[in-house]
Order: sequence, then structure tokens, then C-alpha cells
Amino acid sequence: MSLSESIVDTFTGWAAKAPGAPLEPHSYDPGPLGAEEVEVAVEYCGICHSDQSMIDNEWGNARYPFIPGHEVVGTIVRLGEQARGLKLGQRVGIGWYKGSCMHCGSCMEGSHNLCRTVKPTIVGSNGGFADRLRSHWAWAVALPDGLDPALVGPLFCAGSTVFSPLLEFNVKPTDKVGVVGIGGLGHLALRFLNAWGCDVTAFTSSLSKQDEAKSLGAHKVVASTDSAAMKAIAGSLDFLLVTASADLDWNALLGTLKGKGRLHFVGIVPSAIPVHVFSLIPQQKTLSGSPVGSPASMATMLEFCARHQILPQVEHFPMSKVNDAIDHLRAGKARYRVVLDASK
Amino acid sequence: MSLSESIVDTFTGWAAKAPGAPLEPHSYDPGPLGAEEVEVAVEYCGICHSDQSMIDNEWGNARYPFIPGHEVVGTIVRLGEQARGLKLGQRVGIGWYKGSCMHCGSCMEGSHNLCRTVKPTIVGSNGGFADRLRSHWAWAVALPDGLDPALVGPLFCAGSTVFSPLLEFNVKPTDKVGVVGIGGLGHLALRFLNAWGCDVTAFTSSLSKQDEAKSLGAHKVVASTDSAAMKAIAGSLDFLLVTASADLDWNALLGTLKGKGRLHFVGIVPSAIPVHVFSLIPQQKTLSGSPVGSPASMATMLEFCARHQILPQVEHFPMSKVNDAIDHLRAGKARYRVVLDASK
Repeated sequence: MSLSESIVDTFTGWAAKAPGAPLEPHSYDPGPLGAEEVEVAVEYCGICHSDQSMIDNEWGNARYPFIPGHEVVGTIVRLGEQARGLKLGQRVGIGWYKGSCMHCGSCMEGSHNLCRTVKPTIVGSNGGFADRLRSHWAWAVALPDGLDPALVGPLFCAGSTVFSPLLEFNVKPTDKVGVVGIGGLGHLALRFLNAWGCDVTAFTSSLSKQDEAKSLGAHKVVASTDSAAMKAIAGSLDFLLVTASADLDWNALLGTLKGKGRLHFVGIVPSAIPVHVFSLIPQQKTLSGSPVGSPASMATMLEFCARHQILPQVEHFPMSKVNDAIDHLRAGKARYRVVLDASK
Repeated sequence: MSLSESIVDTFTGWAAKAPGAPLEPHSYDPGPLGAEEVEVAVEYCGICHSDQSMIDNEWGNARYPFIPGHEVVGTIVRLGEQARGLKLGQRVGIGWYKGSCMHCGSCMEGSHNLCRTVKPTIVGSNGGFADRLRSHWAWAVALPDGLDPALVGPLFCAGSTVFSPLLEFNVKPTDKVGVVGIGGLGHLALRFLNAWGCDVTAFTSSLSKQDEAKSLGAHKVVASTDSAAMKAIAGSLDFLLVTASADLDWNALLGTLKGKGRLHFVGIVPSAIPVHVFSLIPQQKTLSGSPVGSPASMATMLEFCARHQILPQVEHFPMSKVNDAIDHLRAGKARYRVVLDASK
């Protein structure tokens, strides 16, 4: 049985028409399908904190009307003439990026996520709170068997963002690893690291999430405001992953690292971090950051997730109730990620 | 022929008796030789910027009278009962550290330089501007054949400090590497990196050292104040080694790195470095620091130096003219390292 293309003239989704505005139905003409593009019929789309940032134009680069959404799961309904490795009807995910040049040094090394002309899914173009979305074929990552498509959306942004550093910086199963911030990204980091074999410590602003953090995979939970607990854990961690988007006591957090330890940022911390070389040099410490992973690392992540049945903990909202879902997120109530169901 | 021990009651050197004071002859009783210690008859001792910092009590941890000196070359004249791997009459070097606990996780992994109780040669004890110096046997590193002992002293502090990161962070011969600051540390970094096979760029505050930097191994020289030149080199370096001890435009220097690039500090930069995560995350950049290397990395460095005949460029002063030598250093005239000759 061969599937045939499904061609529509316009894409319809939910758009903000001004900064911070509620989303309204909006249709647009996507133009001709690019030779290397694929078109996906959206089934599910997660909501990420950066969708909210873009709706509100926090970074000053939003264009309205603007359809958010970059944790898309759906099936391929059209294939450009040069699209590779995918077929009609195949289920894929698309995350924060939907294209890259394919020929620069980074792309050729497999680090398409570091391409200098990488194309974010929702910066300057419309995203996945819609019936359809297009991406370059390389950025539509096939789902392996055994992962529930209704749950995997957040893996393509939140999940990949915290998974990629484990691969990139050779986190070892024997490592002691901390996670700062137990939210959309952090809760996945705890699940990954537990399956990775590490000794896992969750750092939270209060201990109210203690039991939940343990159920997510943390072996220990430390309140970062508890100076005695911070002192007890000082000098012990190999790797500390910051998923929080807040200004914290970075010196105290650097102090939790052992020699050669790494403080790694994936959260958008608002202020500059003041680092004195005296907190790096004597114990050979490192500070770094990374974006969402490459397509290859996403495929590796999905395989790992399927083997260990690691999935985001999500709440479902019908796409038609997207504004309720965003309000829920804005109220800080999401546990831990919201997924929109495009069929409802 | 067996050599016999040479025992003296007092050690005599050149001490500052107050912060910033000229050095004067000073004798002290070193006490009994520790079981794991070796005693070295000093032949040569380099002068490092941190000797000057300690003389001036810049870091608030100097005790007077204080004998500086931590780039020592000499011969073993006494061996403690438990001293290993060395013999009387053997020529060794001693650098910034002279002891470590030997049993902590860092020591057991070979990173004795990251031992939490590592013992600096001149913090709280007397150094090598003297006739004798003791160290733990592990920190007296044997000189291989083929290296001139009158020149190698600075390798044990300046040299090891810039060599260690090349090993620790797997700098590859195919890498494009920059060096910021062409002084005692930086001139050795250029020589190492040239022999390492890298593409080497020297960054200087002005281009007056351009020809010299090239003769030391740089393929290119960039004035870090030249915004056009900085723009031309943007996004190209794998590794940028900061040997300068000044507050520079860190954002511009981070901008010279390509994706996955590392900005690495070995110089004591006075102020905190303000790092925004936006300058790390999108291109997965890293910021780090490291101290002088481990004894094992020093042995590796010496072997590499012997093979490639890499030696510091030094000016010699007799030990009896140590104050002239320090004035020369203070005036910024050292090209690039001063070595004191203990026999004169």
C-alpha cells in the first residue's frame, strides 16, 4: 500500500496577534513546499516556557500574528523531492529547530544544532499549535516503536536540551550529578540520569517537591537555600545541570563541584553570572552551556527512552483550549509539561 | 659509586622581612627531614609573577620573613626513608606545589594538583631563593636527559600551567588555538602549541610583540583592541588560553570561539568575569580554569620539551643580585622569564 500526499492550501493554527495576547484562530499560506522539506500533520504539540516568552516578545524577536509551538509530533503527509530518510505516513517529532544549512563545519560534523544559520521553529515563522508544520527532513526525527506519541512531544525540546549534554560531555554512570530546577526540563533530566546509572541529586528552592523529585529518579534532594545541606554536599559533584531560569547563588553551586567538575547551563538565566577565576582555577572547574541537541542526538535519546520507557510527565489539553493551557503554564501549575491534542 | 647524604643544620636564602621589602639574607632551621621528603641543593630558581605577589602580600596569606622561589632546579642531597623513585645526586625540578596528601580521590587519580590539601611551595613556608629546598618526593620531578638545567626552572610553574590544559582538555594538533598574553606563561604556550601541531594565534594588547610572537611559534598575531581583526577571527578558534592577568573584553574573546570552543583561564584575572548564558548556550561554549599540572603531566611535559627542544626564553641573574632581578620583573622588562643562578 502506498500512501499519497495530502495537499492543503493554507495552514490553520492558534496565533497571538500582539505581544501577550490570547491566541486566536489564524490561517496562513505556507507557500510551495521546499525540495528538502517535509510536511507534518500535527497530532500533538507540547508547550514550552519559550513559547510563552515568544508570545510575550520577551526577547524582542517575535513577529505577529504568531503561531507558537515547537514540540510537535505528527505524521508525514508531504515529502519534498530531495527529502531523505522519511516516508509518507511516518510519525516524527520536530523541536526547537526545523532547519540548518547542512554544509557548514558544524552540520558536516553532525552538530546541526550549532549551525550558524540554524532555523528556529518559531522565531520568524509559525510553529506547531496548528494543523500542519514543515521542517527540513533532517530535523523531523522519526519515532521508534514503543513510545506513546501522545507523550513524546516534550522530548523534542525539553528532553533533548537536557539529554544532549550527557552525550556531549561524556557523563558517566559512575558520576555524581546534580539537577537544579525540577520543572519541564529538570524532571526529564532526573529520569534520564537515573536510567544513566548516576548518583542523582535534585536541587530545589524548597523541599516541597522532595517526594516528587525522588519519584522522578533523584536519590537525594537538597534545598539550595539550606546552607548546612549545601555545605554537606560541597566538593562532591562531577556535573551540575542548571535547568532553572533564575539568578541563583552561583558561587555556592560551583562549590558543590569536585575537582574537574562542570556547572552546565541549559536554562536561560536572566543576569550575567559573575565568575571569578579563583573559583575555577584551583580545582580545574568548568562552566558551560548548550542548546537543544542535534538530530542524531535526538534519535539516540529516543532509542534510550524507548528502552527505559522514559517519558515526560504531561497534562493534556485540547488544542481548542490552548489559552487555558497557557494560563495553566503561566500560573506555574504545569506538572511538568503541557501537551496539546490537535484532534480536540 | 654511591653518593652520600649532605646534611646541613640551617637553610640560607633571600627573604622579604615585610610586605614589599627588598630581600635580605636569611637563615632558618628546616627541622627534621620528613620520611617522604627529599632535600634539594638549589642550582637555579626562576622568578614568577606570583613570587612578587607573595612578597607584596597581594593575596593576604604571606608570612614574614619570607623566602620566595618556586621554579627550582637542583640535585637531590637527602632522601627521607620513604621517598620513592629518586636517588641522591639526581637532578629534579620543584614548582608551585611541593606536597599533597597522596591518598584522596584526586591524588589517587593522578591529579595531585587538585588535592584539597595540596601544599604550595611558598604559601606559609620558605621557597627556593635559597641554598636548599625540600618537597614531597612525588613533587620533585626528575629531569630527562637533553634539557639544559640552567633554563628549565620556569617549566615547573609557568610551563606546566600552560601545558597541563593541553593534556587535560585534549587539544588536538588539528585545532585552532589562541593565546592571550605573551609573557612568562604565554611565550611557552606558543612554543608548546606550535610543536603540538596547532594553528596558533597570539593575542596581544599591541602589535609591538608581533615579530617576537611569530618567532615563538605563533602563525598569526591579533591585537585584541583591533575590532576589525577581532571580527575577522570571530567564530574560528577551538581553544583560547588566557595567560594574561588583566580584565579584558571577555565577550569579544568568547566571540572568537567556534561551536564547542573553550575559553580557558590560567592567569589570575582580577575582577569577576560577567558571563551571560546567551554567550555560552547557542554555540555550546565552555569557560574553565586550571592550576599548575600534576607531577605526571610535568614528566610528560619534560619529555615533550626534550624531544622538541622547547625551553623558556630566560635572562639570568646571580642569586646575589636577586633584588635587581625583581626590579627588572617589576618594571615589566623580563623577556620572558628571569632565572637566578644559585652558584653566583
